[in-house]
Amino acid sequence: MRSTFHDLEKTIRRRRTADPSQSYVAKLTARGRGKIAQKVGEEAVETVIAAMASDREGVVGESADLIFHLMVLLADLDIPLDAVLDELDRREGVSGIAEKAARPKD
Amino acid sequence: MRSTFHDLEKTIRRRRTADPSQSYVAKLTARGRGKIAQKVGEEAVETVIAAMASDREGVVGESADLIFHLMVLLADLDIPLDAVLDELDRREGVSGIAEKAARPKD
Amino acid sequence: MRSTFHDLEKTIRRRRTADPSQSYVAKLTARGRGKIAQKVGEEAVETVIAAMASDREGVVGESADLIFHLMVLLADLDIPLDAVLDELDRREGVSGIAEKAARPKD
Amino acid sequence: MRSTFHDLEKTIRRRRTADPSQSYVAKLTARGRGKIAQKVGEEAVETVIAAMASDREGVVGESADLIFHLMVLLADLDIPLDAVLDELDRREGVSGIAEKAARPKD
Repeated sequence: MRSTFHDLEKTIRRRRTADPSQSYVAKLTARGRGKIAQKVGEEAVETVIAAMASDREGVVGESADLIFHLMVLLADLDIPLDAVLDELDRREGVSGIAEKAARPKD
Repeated sequence: MRSTFHDLEKTIRRRRTADPSQSYVAKLTARGRGKIAQKVGEEAVETVIAAMASDREGVVGESADLIFHLMVLLADLDIPLDAVLDELDRREGVSGIAEKAARPKD
Repeated sequence: MRSTFHDLEKTIRRRRTADPSQSYVAKLTARGRGKIAQKVGEEAVETVIAAMASDREGVVGESADLIFHLMVLLADLDIPLDAVLDELDRREGVSGIAEKAARPKD
Repeated sequence: MRSTFHDLEKTIRRRRTADPSQSYVAKLTARGRGKIAQKVGEEAVETVIAAMASDREGVVGESADLIFHLMVLLADLDIPLDAVLDELDRREGVSGIAEKAARPKD
């Protein structure tokens, strides 16, 4: 079992308070939640574009960027990764991914 | 160690070929890569908006949706989750997250 | 000279206070700024995807949706369309679109 | 009546073939449709974030950036601005913005 996500979560939380001149996480965090959220949106756009261009290498890199910045955003909101995993488990647990389809969407 | 992500990957890959009337993954996949990519973009936008509204419960739900649809997109491109995890590990391994900051951005 | 944009601005502003059961603008406005902003983000994603798919008809429709929802958002913030046009004129006026390239981007 | 949009369209179309070292439009165009589409997505994200932060000055600037890059994208697909305006007029003409609400959305 890989520990990448939880290791990454710990690293990100530790670096939030590092010297912004030494740490990308600290620097981005210092710029405020809007800038972190902006990066999440931008990396999603880049993932979408790489996917539409069938650029598999690009999708790998942009997906990594997207997950990384999503985790910086979760840390900024003090939301543990496990809360998101619990939510993913819960949806699976109820009635499979069909549950997702059943949710009211607006 | 939690297995949520890899279990989810297996479930998504199995459901891609299920009956679209029974499975959200099969239905979305049948609509084509553009629709899957669209969902990734939309869930990212919803995550951004929930974060800006300091709606922590919303961020948990939208982040789960974002990760879920990103994994449907990866499956559609036949990219294993491990390729993305390797990329995340590699960036950490080289020189820490500082490596990210050092990458040329356009 | 076409008046589409300013006519649309007037129509949108008038419909904001209409019966939400009769008017899409009133209904969306009643759901709050987050929902309007979400539509702007979603229509941009759909425009991007149509462009990447070289779906010219799709780009026309999604661009119209994007501009329409952007104008609903501007109205919600009580920003006149002319403020945005002034900004576009100003950038052109200073030193051409080169000015845009010269702006510090983060 | 203001001519901003059509003037801008003419300027953008002329600059597409200018020296990329002198013109932002030429430089962005040379990088390919994916990069232009990426800018449209990014500026939409920035508009959304500025709106959620109630940053009215930010919304004005980001909306101008969004419209500008949307017009660069339209030019790249050789779609005249009037095709988008026709679509906006058509929707208004049929049955008002209610028509928009009536459209099947997926």
